[in-house]
Amino acid sequence: MSADLATLVTAIAVRARAAALVLATTPTAQKDAALLALARLLPAAEATLLAANALDLAAARAASLPAAQIDRLTLTPARLVHLAESVAQVAALPDPVGEPLESTTRPNGIVIRKLRVPLGVIGIIYEARPNVTIDCAVLCLKSGNASILRGGKEIFHTNTALAALVQQALAETGLPADAVQLIPTTDRAALNHLLTLDSLISCIIPRGGESLIRFVAEHSTIPVIKHYTGVCFVYVDKAADPAMAEAIILNAKTQRPGVCNTAEQLLVHAGIAPSILPRLAAALCAKGVQLRCDPAALALLASTPGLKTSAATEADFRAEFLDLILAVRIVPDLESAIAIINRDSSAHTDAIITADQTAARRFQAAVDSAVVPWNASTRFNDGFEFGFGAEIGISTDRLHARGPMGLRELCTYKYLIDGTGQIRA
Amino acid sequence: MSADLATLVTAIAVRARAAALVLATTPTAQKDAALLALARLLPAAEATLLAANALDLAAARAASLPAAQIDRLTLTPARLVHLAESVAQVAALPDPVGEPLESTTRPNGIVIRKLRVPLGVIGIIYEARPNVTIDCAVLCLKSGNASILRGGKEIFHTNTALAALVQQALAETGLPADAVQLIPTTDRAALNHLLTLDSLISCIIPRGGESLIRFVAEHSTIPVIKHYTGVCFVYVDKAADPAMAEAIILNAKTQRPGVCNTAEQLLVHAGIAPSILPRLAAALCAKGVQLRCDPAALALLASTPGLKTSAATEADFRAEFLDLILAVRIVPDLESAIAIINRDSSAHTDAIITADQTAARRFQAAVDSAVVPWNASTRFNDGFEFGFGAEIGISTDRLHARGPMGLRELCTYKYLIDGTGQIRA
Repeated sequence: MSADLATLVTAIAVRARAAALVLATTPTAQKDAALLALARLLPAAEATLLAANALDLAAARAASLPAAQIDRLTLTPARLVHLAESVAQVAALPDPVGEPLESTTRPNGIVIRKLRVPLGVIGIIYEARPNVTIDCAVLCLKSGNASILRGGKEIFHTNTALAALVQQALAETGLPADAVQLIPTTDRAALNHLLTLDSLISCIIPRGGESLIRFVAEHSTIPVIKHYTGVCFVYVDKAADPAMAEAIILNAKTQRPGVCNTAEQLLVHAGIAPSILPRLAAALCAKGVQLRCDPAALALLASTPGLKTSAATEADFRAEFLDLILAVRIVPDLESAIAIINRDSSAHTDAIITADQTAARRFQAAVDSAVVPWNASTRFNDGFEFGFGAEIGISTDRLHARGPMGLRELCTYKYLIDGTGQIRA
Repeated sequence: MSADLATLVTAIAVRARAAALVLATTPTAQKDAALLALARLLPAAEATLLAANALDLAAARAASLPAAQIDRLTLTPARLVHLAESVAQVAALPDPVGEPLESTTRPNGIVIRKLRVPLGVIGIIYEARPNVTIDCAVLCLKSGNASILRGGKEIFHTNTALAALVQQALAETGLPADAVQLIPTTDRAALNHLLTLDSLISCIIPRGGESLIRFVAEHSTIPVIKHYTGVCFVYVDKAADPAMAEAIILNAKTQRPGVCNTAEQLLVHAGIAPSILPRLAAALCAKGVQLRCDPAALALLASTPGLKTSAATEADFRAEFLDLILAVRIVPDLESAIAIINRDSSAHTDAIITADQTAARRFQAAVDSAVVPWNASTRFNDGFEFGFGAEIGISTDRLHARGPMGLRELCTYKYLIDGTGQIRA
């Protein structure tokens, strides 16, 4: 890498750190004013933004990117209005900064208070979606963090225009424009350098596919909060209600098959499988789901006509298909289901369907996953569904943040001690 | 590295993960019984432990290790009794596992509960102190975590005997002995392999000097919670009470100069420096403290006889001396003190001494450090002083745990969702 590039990236991080110190004590009203200014500017700057976006779209077409990907790159007037609405919604959320978490008075009289405070500078590394630029900048700002954004090259002109607009909103409300900065190059060397600046940047959040996340996790000396996709299970217990099981599995598998909280694996208790599995299979197949079955499930379904079933491979039982495919196994009992899930799932979201509360509580206690629904769809592992008002992603890590990450999860804490001259004996 | 060594270390981690799943739902009484069994075994196994320790001490003497280091390696009957007492104290602490953190009922009727749960498998990498073996094993066990211990080679025989004793206590109470395992080699290659097992180990905590921590942080793909030492500041505000300032600074600098929460840097408001600094300097020098001063402080102290003062270098103003040395600067005002601390401190513990509550609150809000005492010694950043009952260290990280780490900071959380058949629309 050229020394110039390293100098450029380091200077961005130094300015971000200075801005973060300002943001840490910025009143809520001022942060919200900046967000509302941005919400006004987004539709108002339509012409500029669409012109920048047109450059990216022309390049995307010239490079023959797939239509679905070009669609994700595309800004439209309607999408700008929607983006502005989401910014205004974040402005309306409670400010997590300064929230008192705990307080204790010690025998020597010192009072120790634990308060929520911003993480500092957050680096967001993402692929080619313009809404991520705004979403992440806005969530970081509301939670008092400075952000450094590094988006994909396919959306570089659009991101540059969007970041300029965020900086305009910051400046208009008297906040440091350096609170949101875009790395002004998509040179991979700049990213590699950014990932070493652990004295200036508190945290890196990669948003995108697994290969992007792995690259960032391997190269970063800064803590990374990872958002891998999920290998999510639904276990149909012996005491499951068949209609409820059918509704939940259909929802978990087919409502949005390409996302991380979709079900990929079905376990059915052997005591209920003969009566329930043909029904579940028929309903799933009617929705276009292909079933990859263990021998016992395959045998059970052999007599049901018209099903799209096949024998599963070992790899299928750990697969995240992100498609209309479901792996199916028959298990002898609850404990087997728990053991399989703790071995084969990605510990993201694993659900039990049962009318037996004892079984449900045992399952919820023993399954070592971020979210464990009982008689509810796996699709509820989501910041909006949790009532967070917004989310920056769903953490698959165990440290700091697990499951949906909202504004509070973009914060750390500090302790204030109030004394009257106390010293240690 | 030999394939055998990698196989050995991986097998340890696989067994630790299996034990962690058992520990995650082990009742408090059973964990406490194992701890109390260990507390009984420690003095009872005195002969075995001292014999193992004698091997390490003989090697240490043969290698001409410094006397202070040999002292740290040494087990004595009295130290074993003390160690047993500390184990019993941890047994008496509240169990953090299962603690309800939050609960919410969503408009669709699902109930979401957030509970504290163990992190899983924790790797402890430490230097040559036998009490760390017991302390860490015990804190991990109480918090429901399996631990993998990798201590320094100077204490290998002692650690092996101590780990065997812990495993005996586990087995006697029906818990998996694999819940606490020692890496049975001090080959650095085994450590390097351990640090790559991110699918089995949740977290690495290095306990020791800065070079050990940096090595672990650089080589680990597992999240590391770092415990660096501190560059801690005391700021004497214009409105400080002189007697209180003297008492706090003496305590913060001289009570235990070699630890992370000792004061290394003194800032004095220019408005009070002429009256207070000669008094503070005289008191510090009477305790053997050497002062490294900026030109203004040096000039102020020039007329005071008998002081050990010298001109500070730039490096002194960011130094952690861990010795009876204090860097001293005069600052024009509160905001300058805040800016200097946010630039030069290690964000560990930075205190203000003042009778002015407005100044104190501004300082506490704006200083971006883990612990910010007002009119209290920096030495209070400590798990015992915070009332945690025990600590595994003082985190200098911002993610997950910041400041003193007790049992709760060795946990993560999970969400349980209770539904009645809800699906996402």
